[in-house]
Amino acid sequence: MNRVFNFNPGPGLLPVEVLQKIQSALLSYGDTGMGILEISHRSKQFERLLNETKLLLAELLEIPTSHEILFVTGGATAQFSMVPMNLLREGKTGNYLVAGIWGDKAYEEAKKFGSAHIAASSKAHRYSEIPKKLILSPNPAYLHITSNNTVEGTQLHTFPDGAPLVCDASSDLLSRPMAVSNFELIYACAQKNIGPTGVTIVIGKRETFADSPSTLPILYSYKTYLDSNSLYNTPPVFAIYGVFEMLQWLKRNGGIQSQQERNRVKAETLYTALDSLPFYRSHAATDDRSLMNIVFSCPTPELDTTFAKEAEAHGLFGLLGHKAHGGIRASIYNAFPVEGVTALVQFMKDFAQKRG
Amino acid sequence: MNRVFNFNPGPGLLPVEVLQKIQSALLSYGDTGMGILEISHRSKQFERLLNETKLLLAELLEIPTSHEILFVTGGATAQFSMVPMNLLREGKTGNYLVAGIWGDKAYEEAKKFGSAHIAASSKAHRYSEIPKKLILSPNPAYLHITSNNTVEGTQLHTFPDGAPLVCDASSDLLSRPMAVSNFELIYACAQKNIGPTGVTIVIGKRETFADSPSTLPILYSYKTYLDSNSLYNTPPVFAIYGVFEMLQWLKRNGGIQSQQERNRVKAETLYTALDSLPFYRSHAATDDRSLMNIVFSCPTPELDTTFAKEAEAHGLFGLLGHKAHGGIRASIYNAFPVEGVTALVQFMKDFAQKRG
Repeated sequence: MNRVFNFNPGPGLLPVEVLQKIQSALLSYGDTGMGILEISHRSKQFERLLNETKLLLAELLEIPTSHEILFVTGGATAQFSMVPMNLLREGKTGNYLVAGIWGDKAYEEAKKFGSAHIAASSKAHRYSEIPKKLILSPNPAYLHITSNNTVEGTQLHTFPDGAPLVCDASSDLLSRPMAVSNFELIYACAQKNIGPTGVTIVIGKRETFADSPSTLPILYSYKTYLDSNSLYNTPPVFAIYGVFEMLQWLKRNGGIQSQQERNRVKAETLYTALDSLPFYRSHAATDDRSLMNIVFSCPTPELDTTFAKEAEAHGLFGLLGHKAHGGIRASIYNAFPVEGVTALVQFMKDFAQKRG
Repeated sequence: MNRVFNFNPGPGLLPVEVLQKIQSALLSYGDTGMGILEISHRSKQFERLLNETKLLLAELLEIPTSHEILFVTGGATAQFSMVPMNLLREGKTGNYLVAGIWGDKAYEEAKKFGSAHIAASSKAHRYSEIPKKLILSPNPAYLHITSNNTVEGTQLHTFPDGAPLVCDASSDLLSRPMAVSNFELIYACAQKNIGPTGVTIVIGKRETFADSPSTLPILYSYKTYLDSNSLYNTPPVFAIYGVFEMLQWLKRNGGIQSQQERNRVKAETLYTALDSLPFYRSHAATDDRSLMNIVFSCPTPELDTTFAKEAEAHGLFGLLGHKAHGGIRASIYNAFPVEGVTALVQFMKDFAQKRG
């Protein structure tokens, strides 16, 4: 079976060599005689796998010893609830930098659990830029940011300060170095750069996790995960294994610095093509362009649809933009091959010439 | 690689033919040119898979049209919170039949969210039986039961009434027919009889799901799943696919009635051996014996440990009981082969003769 170029925004594609490793672990993981879907989460083999995954993540991201790694389920959406439920206390306010629809969802959810404040928003500009001027509330509990806006194709290239930073890094964690010690908490669902769907990585200060209120639903308390090494109940064993294989792959390929370089080359190739083809309109402000999701549009919505449809005949899939935003979106996460970018650039040129 | 007999209580083993189907879907699912880990949850292929999984489940379990199927994450533990958060209102009381440590955990969690009452408990007898006499509270919101007690090896063979029934069927859903219309809500994590870890099936009355309070964390509201066909955010695509393959396997093998017959033969073989070997002590009251988890013990805890260790040399793994209970536990879910049961019986006889 020929594999296509998969530009989907997540679940995203995985390297073939990782998929082949997963294939071989399905009938027997290591020398256990049981497949990875079948091993007990209380087995010494899984405990080792879990701990090795944490060590690899800590090594690759240079996570300081002040911070712990938790494996949670429910994706970023569960974190939209868990962050205020765990961190927002009486008399404090959750601050939100809203630079995309996911940041807006995080803010809307926080209002259920306490006082929430928009420190800045670029909604009026269809989230085409990252607001640089923030007005924090008095007594901020935290400042929540979205490091990469998957839908709108913008990315924070510098980070604000003034309050403990909570970062939704769902679509760019592991795609570039990050000064983890500057963050109170970072979370990311796995299915973009980190591994298969089904697990969310939460990295945060140990004392923050330890301080969760005891009234929370047991699995919505960070403390539950901290106290049990993410083994309070059956964790998503397979998804964690997938993360382990992806981290190994990242390490074999030179780690995060090398990955960032490859991501830069891929994105620049696409942005250069975009800027040279007046047929297309690039959405993001130049300084805020994302290296992960390249968002643009044809002269009309009808042409966007035609573009995405015709691209499929060239083996380029998943290019239609998010339904709330429209346009075209090319998601080029860590595992996305440069050959796919070259093929897309060629298609963009041909399409513009034919329809321009 | 030789596969062993895997008696683990969950994640449990999966049929080799299912594992092979999953293997082949990893590099390309159907004709998509993308693996099952990589397809978009918004693709028509996944929507079809999700809907076919629901139809198969409805067909096999004979789910009436009054009831809906939701795909949730977080296992039974998340349901321990979600049930009272969604169903328990001011002036009402959540009733709990506590016949095992999991039922007790469900009760303990419910107390966080409102009034909870133990209608009956067999804790004083180390949960060796299912209490038959229940004393319900005034204004019961529901009566929560655990249909099969994984740790203690007991199972409800008839179901109580007197209040809307909420059933944790995590370790026996799909192992026997169930009169779904008699239940307000049934939930089950997948990793025992239903599929791989990572998804929880929740079946309940549509109007119950529709009535969730709007103040809940978005993913802890049943209404979120009802309104979005379990697609509010990225669902556990791979685990749902695994469930689909397991349901197909169950259907190919004659459906639930045939499966129950096979389960009965396997369990009776083990109980017959147990009853004929005075060296072992069977834990469950005879009338309440589980067809899923056969729990017994050797004359001393030291011999239990030796038993489980020596069994591994014969390819029999995962036999040590739950740490909170001790003893030996043989979990023989739907996919567990009869050959493994025969091998265990032989080992039990040899071990008893050698050490008795």
